[in-house]
Amino acid sequence: MTRPDTSPLRIGIAGLGTVGAGVVKLLAANAGAIAARAGRPVAVTAVSARSRGRDRGVDLAPYAWEDDAVRLAARDDVDCVVEVVGGSNGPAKALVEAALAAGKPVVTANKALIAHHGQALAEAAEAAGVALRAEAGVAGGIPVMKALTEGLAANRIHRVSGVLNGTCNYILTEMAATGRGYAEVLAEAQAKGYAEADPAFDVGGTDAAHKLAILAAAAFGTRVDFAGVTTEGIERITAADIETAGDLGFAIKLLAVARMEAGGLEQRVRPTMVPRESLIGSLPGVTNAVVLEGDFVGTCAFTGPGAGEGPTASAIVADLMDIARGAAGPLFAQPAAGLRAAERLDYSDEHAPYYLRFSLLDRPGALAALASAIGEAGVSIHRMRQYGRGGARAGAVPVVIVTHDARREMIDGAVARIAALDVSAAEPVAIAIEEI
Amino acid sequence: MTRPDTSPLRIGIAGLGTVGAGVVKLLAANAGAIAARAGRPVAVTAVSARSRGRDRGVDLAPYAWEDDAVRLAARDDVDCVVEVVGGSNGPAKALVEAALAAGKPVVTANKALIAHHGQALAEAAEAAGVALRAEAGVAGGIPVMKALTEGLAANRIHRVSGVLNGTCNYILTEMAATGRGYAEVLAEAQAKGYAEADPAFDVGGTDAAHKLAILAAAAFGTRVDFAGVTTEGIERITAADIETAGDLGFAIKLLAVARMEAGGLEQRVRPTMVPRESLIGSLPGVTNAVVLEGDFVGTCAFTGPGAGEGPTASAIVADLMDIARGAAGPLFAQPAAGLRAAERLDYSDEHAPYYLRFSLLDRPGALAALASAIGEAGVSIHRMRQYGRGGARAGAVPVVIVTHDARREMIDGAVARIAALDVSAAEPVAIAIEEI
Repeated sequence: MTRPDTSPLRIGIAGLGTVGAGVVKLLAANAGAIAARAGRPVAVTAVSARSRGRDRGVDLAPYAWEDDAVRLAARDDVDCVVEVVGGSNGPAKALVEAALAAGKPVVTANKALIAHHGQALAEAAEAAGVALRAEAGVAGGIPVMKALTEGLAANRIHRVSGVLNGTCNYILTEMAATGRGYAEVLAEAQAKGYAEADPAFDVGGTDAAHKLAILAAAAFGTRVDFAGVTTEGIERITAADIETAGDLGFAIKLLAVARMEAGGLEQRVRPTMVPRESLIGSLPGVTNAVVLEGDFVGTCAFTGPGAGEGPTASAIVADLMDIARGAAGPLFAQPAAGLRAAERLDYSDEHAPYYLRFSLLDRPGALAALASAIGEAGVSIHRMRQYGRGGARAGAVPVVIVTHDARREMIDGAVARIAALDVSAAEPVAIAIEEI
Repeated sequence: MTRPDTSPLRIGIAGLGTVGAGVVKLLAANAGAIAARAGRPVAVTAVSARSRGRDRGVDLAPYAWEDDAVRLAARDDVDCVVEVVGGSNGPAKALVEAALAAGKPVVTANKALIAHHGQALAEAAEAAGVALRAEAGVAGGIPVMKALTEGLAANRIHRVSGVLNGTCNYILTEMAATGRGYAEVLAEAQAKGYAEADPAFDVGGTDAAHKLAILAAAAFGTRVDFAGVTTEGIERITAADIETAGDLGFAIKLLAVARMEAGGLEQRVRPTMVPRESLIGSLPGVTNAVVLEGDFVGTCAFTGPGAGEGPTASAIVADLMDIARGAAGPLFAQPAAGLRAAERLDYSDEHAPYYLRFSLLDRPGALAALASAIGEAGVSIHRMRQYGRGGARAGAVPVVIVTHDARREMIDGAVARIAALDVSAAEPVAIAIEEI
């Protein structure tokens, strides 16, 4: 045994928004317990942000100030850098690169940075012999990167799935609870601070896709492949879809799924029907959840707050404590050089049971035409419901079909055939069903 | 950076029941991924069990054999010992002590051993400068010790609660689903292998109490205090209690709760009413769940398989991988010498809302006598329901009361007063309610 280092781990924090200020608060509030558990104190020595004067609810006087975040990397009194600037390029990337090049470990909450540049940055960290960690970037306060890279690391993981964006989960949960439409609930979420003024990044699925790409790399030993995530947002989900899903025992969630199949890696973020009574189906408000399925452990699920000052700070400081203990392993569970480029699963090989909603003109033979078009497309029907009149157009009736497991290209074929029928009154809707 | 050790970590396994055989299988099945993630191979070199000849579904020919488990500790080809013999004393304890004394790290699945002797063993491990880990002893495959000691280690934890015994959860879930009684469902659980021939250890709450004591030590920085866990089993729960709980929106679960209060540490395992729609209330079958509440992270919940060959092996090998990486921290999150002896919360200071069930003779004034007895005891009523005739005795009617938060000694006082009323037809039942 070498004598453990008991000197303080000296931290430079770049970015003093909610999260950066939260880290300062947490390190002060729980300093004693943190030192006891990490084996040494973890202490902020320097900070950087865009505006020095702003009141952040924390006293920054004890800390050195840098106008230029990148200069934190060069300071002699900074052993380790916390990057909470944000953005996949610009100062965040420059700072992380500079810190690693200077042989200083980095903790970041920046999922966009890791989703885009994780491979190069992980290699740089390993070349320098220091840690790069990003627990706070994925599912906020839930220690799921630790579960994947350490706690369940003995397993071959089959599937990672989860609700990774709290804004979308809030909107969909509210729509289901109140029967209100997407636009109205989004406006309310914005008013409550659960959604940004420009919500595209969240509701379009990009934020969840960033997180999924990072989880998949750690789970499957593959290089992070954000470009390989097929992403569809929640903007087109209607109150009618949610209501019909409820009738069938399902909830609609923005589900992120990464699955290793024989044909390659499937990574998808999309509105998905899941059993309403399941852990994911009943997930409330802005909570996140991740479900991991491994060959020996079976299924483990993790739920918790996906964002916010306290949860994000909790994850960042946990990474700092691992670094203080000298116990921080590779970002993606194994050395980055050993990660293989994932084959992407061919679109046409993806398969799932589907929920299909059609709007048919109320004419004799309409239902038969629909059923035969589905059969011709090779899609097998599990359940079918015809509702009373009340579609978007007068005289149109909604018909809902739940299929058996079907390849996506067969579903596309069925939808195209039915959209072309003269009894089709509106664009069909297809939503995948995931048993989870 | 020192050059990392890439030689195999050589394992001696004591105990070749389901779990020991599972570890052998897992280390073989996922050897490549384990080596990549741990930075070095993890390889079994020697084994020990009571009977050499028994077929365990794994080929033991490649491994050295010891009839006496304790001798594993002395072998030159064993770097690290896995103890899955079981039992809080005897060979398990002797082996763990011998291994630590020989400067060899130990991984155990033995909650009884750690609940009874965790403090002394953790001190012995730290004196020897080696790791002692027990992830597999708590909540099976769920990496909750890792979450407490690392992933959420930046937090001051307020409460740890969970369903830690799969047998009890199976029995209570089946009773709720089918309306059948305890004895009948227990017999079925025994037939299915979900309950032991002698089920006392599980259904009496001792197994869950062992696990809770370990979780509490890691959560609160207190010495493990198994004797301080107040334990009540599920044997006296009736189908009627479960049905009434359901009417009120609750499920009855064997809930383990450790909570740090101003007056001291409360550790309890007891049948508890929890909201039926909650994660704990809807927990199915033999699944375990742990809910951790911290000052910065808020609430995180973890669910997964609580026992079985694969999940337990998954947890053991994760500990081995941490040891292989040189990253295994203290068993209870901080050095054992720094753990303080917990003040036990005084019984009379415990408080919760309660479900009370009384059986009253159907006479004029009976309900008034009950209500006034409750009021005299200082207990405030939140809800009250009187059911039609159909109690255990002819002419008796069940009355159910849900109280506001009340100190346990007031509840005891109310129950005693009512049991003494001449209209009381049966022993009252009191079950705490936990909002979780």
